[in-house]
Amino acid sequence: MNGHKEEEHDFEIGLAVPKRKVHEGEGGGGGDGGESCVEFLVDEFKKVGFIVERVIGVSDEFIKLAAPLEVLGRAAAELKVKKPTHIGMDLQFDWEEVDAFVRQPDGMLFSWCERFHFYRHLIYGIVNRGQSTVTLKCHDREIQWEPGEPLLQRLEAESIVKLVFPLHVEAKRKRLLRVWALNWWDFTDQPIDEIYSYFGTKMAVYFSFLGMYTRWMLFPAGLGFVVHLVDFGPFQLLVLPIFFISIVLWAVMFSQFWKRKNSALLSRWQISYSVGAYPGYDLGFKVPGKDRSSLQSSVELISKWGRDKKNDKERFQREEWFGTLMRFRNDVIIILSIICLQLPFELAYAHLYEVVESDYMKFGLTVIYLFLIQYFTRIGGKISVQLINNENNANREYRADSLVYKVFGLYFMQSYIGLFYHALLHRNFKTLRQVLIQRLIVSEVLENLWENSFPYLKYSYKKYKVRRKSKKEKGSPTGKIQFKSRVEKEYLKPTYSASIGEELEDGLFDDLLELTLQFGMIMMFACAFPLAFAFAALNNVTEIRTDALKLLVMMKRPVPRAAATIGAWLNIFQFLIVMSICTNSVLLVCLYDKEGKWRIEPGLAAILVMEHILLLIKFGFSRFVPEEPAWVRANRVKNATQAHEMYSKQLLRSISGGERTSNEIMKVE
Amino acid sequence: MNGHKEEEHDFEIGLAVPKRKVHEGEGGGGGDGGESCVEFLVDEFKKVGFIVERVIGVSDEFIKLAAPLEVLGRAAAELKVKKPTHIGMDLQFDWEEVDAFVRQPDGMLFSWCERFHFYRHLIYGIVNRGQSTVTLKCHDREIQWEPGEPLLQRLEAESIVKLVFPLHVEAKRKRLLRVWALNWWDFTDQPIDEIYSYFGTKMAVYFSFLGMYTRWMLFPAGLGFVVHLVDFGPFQLLVLPIFFISIVLWAVMFSQFWKRKNSALLSRWQISYSVGAYPGYDLGFKVPGKDRSSLQSSVELISKWGRDKKNDKERFQREEWFGTLMRFRNDVIIILSIICLQLPFELAYAHLYEVVESDYMKFGLTVIYLFLIQYFTRIGGKISVQLINNENNANREYRADSLVYKVFGLYFMQSYIGLFYHALLHRNFKTLRQVLIQRLIVSEVLENLWENSFPYLKYSYKKYKVRRKSKKEKGSPTGKIQFKSRVEKEYLKPTYSASIGEELEDGLFDDLLELTLQFGMIMMFACAFPLAFAFAALNNVTEIRTDALKLLVMMKRPVPRAAATIGAWLNIFQFLIVMSICTNSVLLVCLYDKEGKWRIEPGLAAILVMEHILLLIKFGFSRFVPEEPAWVRANRVKNATQAHEMYSKQLLRSISGGERTSNEIMKVE
Repeated sequence: MNGHKEEEHDFEIGLAVPKRKVHEGEGGGGGDGGESCVEFLVDEFKKVGFIVERVIGVSDEFIKLAAPLEVLGRAAAELKVKKPTHIGMDLQFDWEEVDAFVRQPDGMLFSWCERFHFYRHLIYGIVNRGQSTVTLKCHDREIQWEPGEPLLQRLEAESIVKLVFPLHVEAKRKRLLRVWALNWWDFTDQPIDEIYSYFGTKMAVYFSFLGMYTRWMLFPAGLGFVVHLVDFGPFQLLVLPIFFISIVLWAVMFSQFWKRKNSALLSRWQISYSVGAYPGYDLGFKVPGKDRSSLQSSVELISKWGRDKKNDKERFQREEWFGTLMRFRNDVIIILSIICLQLPFELAYAHLYEVVESDYMKFGLTVIYLFLIQYFTRIGGKISVQLINNENNANREYRADSLVYKVFGLYFMQSYIGLFYHALLHRNFKTLRQVLIQRLIVSEVLENLWENSFPYLKYSYKKYKVRRKSKKEKGSPTGKIQFKSRVEKEYLKPTYSASIGEELEDGLFDDLLELTLQFGMIMMFACAFPLAFAFAALNNVTEIRTDALKLLVMMKRPVPRAAATIGAWLNIFQFLIVMSICTNSVLLVCLYDKEGKWRIEPGLAAILVMEHILLLIKFGFSRFVPEEPAWVRANRVKNATQAHEMYSKQLLRSISGGERTSNEIMKVE
Repeated sequence: MNGHKEEEHDFEIGLAVPKRKVHEGEGGGGGDGGESCVEFLVDEFKKVGFIVERVIGVSDEFIKLAAPLEVLGRAAAELKVKKPTHIGMDLQFDWEEVDAFVRQPDGMLFSWCERFHFYRHLIYGIVNRGQSTVTLKCHDREIQWEPGEPLLQRLEAESIVKLVFPLHVEAKRKRLLRVWALNWWDFTDQPIDEIYSYFGTKMAVYFSFLGMYTRWMLFPAGLGFVVHLVDFGPFQLLVLPIFFISIVLWAVMFSQFWKRKNSALLSRWQISYSVGAYPGYDLGFKVPGKDRSSLQSSVELISKWGRDKKNDKERFQREEWFGTLMRFRNDVIIILSIICLQLPFELAYAHLYEVVESDYMKFGLTVIYLFLIQYFTRIGGKISVQLINNENNANREYRADSLVYKVFGLYFMQSYIGLFYHALLHRNFKTLRQVLIQRLIVSEVLENLWENSFPYLKYSYKKYKVRRKSKKEKGSPTGKIQFKSRVEKEYLKPTYSASIGEELEDGLFDDLLELTLQFGMIMMFACAFPLAFAFAALNNVTEIRTDALKLLVMMKRPVPRAAATIGAWLNIFQFLIVMSICTNSVLLVCLYDKEGKWRIEPGLAAILVMEHILLLIKFGFSRFVPEEPAWVRANRVKNATQAHEMYSKQLLRSISGGERTSNEIMKVE
């Protein structure tokens, strides 16, 4: 099975290069000895060990690469990648001892994240090893390949290699389309393991989260439905508080049980995730040069940590505090600018919307508002990215988290401040409900449509442009040009990227943002509109399949990322739960105290006490149910114990025997 | 230095056995061949390798034991203890490769915790290895030592060995007395490293905590002093809220920075502390038989975790949920009984105290109350211990933590409910302040006195009893009997044990309980009585030295415990901070709203908002300042990385070479 799979050689990476013109192709082949650089590149790829296939498309030529297992293994050894072994320890990969390493659940030796990492390493690792500059000819231009320079970097700079992108593997894509994207009757069930092996960890974790969230959502959806429709007669006053308590408990349990599920997933995929264990060890990067240097510096920092402990300690403390200070400054800047700039703007809009009576005016106002808000958010995102680049964050994931927090601050204000305005200041529950329904139904349906149609439009437009161009060149205005090669179609499809801060985040950012804003909306105003949960559940069931379709059909195959959790977003979920405890308490007070007497009568005091008890439960629950299921822990501990017991004697001998040697090695490092 | 120290052979363990009577000693020596069992025990100790010294006291005989390093090393190897090595990994100890292991900061190979563990292992490891029962003669009784039975257990059951206890090492004790206990001018500075090497981890961590807490306390003490004495004129209304905010921020920062300090301490002592890394691996146990079996079961559980993953997973899940359910049931029992039994009692007392006018009646009431409360607490503690023994907690530390939470619940009600009654229900701030002063000054001074005089009284009484007994036996009523041997004096000194649940906790329980109750008192009613911090600071400065004196002079040397943090107590500190945010808000509302109108005016709303912001800061701060300083982390990561890089290749070869062997080993295990 394994052998079979690996012999198939799926082409997983594509490169877009300019098309050989007919006359040039001939001239290049047997000309003055200067090779065409595309030919040269293909030769270099073959030398590395890649299996290369060239496809000529309508306007460009494509090089498809596949790597035999051995080539990938070599790359893994060069990169000193650590992998889990049968004794349970993570050890540095070594091709000679390949049998010692545990295989993926799908039978592959390397996960897709790792494979992609190795591909990039190999592709960008083609360096001019000679002493002299090599001259390459391409499209009548001459390119100087300096010694020591990576070939791909040169060619990208000269825009001869237009794009390096991961390719869909047709068989697996079709299978996923069948068992996942088009399998509507499974509702929230998804083939998570297959998603993992095709899209990588982060994507699989996202879809697993979405599935669990939707499944859990059915409970409050049903409850909300009952609360909305049934009249409980004399107990009507108690219904909303009880609903409030149940959904808070629901949310608290959900966030804790998700953590458990997440660690169970990681245990199944044999990913040993521990924060800070390998700082900078992150597989899913986009700009290898840049990231490797940051990894380098982190490793250097650590290896400098030598004999002179006192000094080192002080240096580390200085750096840590400087970093904390910078982050604090940036947070203050963001928070202040949100409060001083965004808050008045949002309040002005909410106020005008309330004051203006004509529906046309309202419509016009909203259009202007939407236009401005787009602009606002983009500026805010840019500033956030700028600020984060100044921060000295330990690794890419921390940087991404930091961005998430900052951008969420913007969206939080933008999405909820109007609602708060209606709910709290004006106690206008009718408008609040209207706005909620409008946002939940209209905006989510529209957003889903937009999310799925926009990439398609982009793709169609690109195809159209290419067609027109090639028609012009060929001069034959008749006959429709067909895109026959799959790789060219994929090349024209849009990338799965975030609307904000592309270099830090991929398209999951938008999807998770949408999910989080929805969660905040339904939770924070639960008491004002219990039916919202039902709408959200309905929306999420469709969201699973449309997101799947988008990934499989509309987009290029996304660059895999190694992040093992949904990271900052879970913290935001928790924050929203806390917020929702507070806001719902205020809502209940408003509903209870209709005349606006604001007297602390037993009812109000009861609400306050309830609020505090719920907050206590929120923060106490995580002590009660641990984040890691017992069997995951047992597995981990057992592995570690076994490894220790088996090899500790052997290691010891070599340490105390080679005591001096080890010290010397330490010194050299 | 090292060699020198270890050649001294400090006698660190003492055993109390009955004194040889003159005629029996002669008869036993050359009698019918049946040896006196004490002689036999001493011979066995010598066979193990101990250096034995026998001291004849007034009423008992004492056997002092010292162990050469090699003997301890053998025990360590038998116990498969893991120790940090020079390459940074923790490896199983092996006497042959002793140079590979890192030594303690004081130059010893083993810490006092480890040494004590090994001593016990050796002492209780003397087993009848023969096939037949050995008959020992002692005091004209005959004792049957069955094959396979530990000798000490037999002798303890026959109460021939009355006690096994750790001995003070006189030189070190005197040094500590000089540089620590009597060194009053250092205020909060203490020689923590020396305390660590003499008393073990848990004690050193406690004193380090106490020192830091007292040092930090100086800030709110000063602030409280200023607030209490200075009149701010028109800003008087703002003074208390500002004071409130500052002390909450102070407390939040303190608890976070303590965590950092704790991990820095552990890094210095080379203790790699990770929760759950070695379940059941706990050095400070008292009942070796019992604890070892629980350790055994935990290890067994893990090693059973084999091929049949599905089943194992289900079993683990079942056990985990059953454990959670049991804990939940116990918590509910405790909480309900506190609310239903203790709360009415306390409220009744508080109410009667308020209602009764005569001072004599008040005094009588308090006496009855104090009598009942003693009884109450003892029953509560017993029930808690019973409940905890039913819980299936992973290890001793978890069990101890569980007890701490439950018992703290009792004390919480007992200590604060009266204060709440005065503060909130009756808004009687005068009585509240009176009670606070009374508790802080009177009770703390009394408690300190009691704490130090009670052990002394106990010690004196024991000495008196022994004297009377030996006088009676000797029949010579004249002449005072002197206790010349130090070991006998130590034997008569009281044990450093908790007033509650002796088998789970040592005397630190009482000390930490006192500290925590003080913290709760000053924090929760900070706005009612800002001067409290000054009293607490004063009290704690003396507490450091009196606790030190108690340990060094009044008590037996305590059994060392390996706990690396103050555990549950820090969580209780954090809980008290949260509580104090809420109670102080209520206090401010009461102070602000003198007429009891209970209207939500801007002032009240501001207080509510402030409360929520402070709660947010409390829970957000830990995200901002990590628990582990950067240099500790760097050190840890560096060690791990180095170890990996150096030995990964070697390990791999042996794994993939011996793939089958490793599988076989797994099966056998």
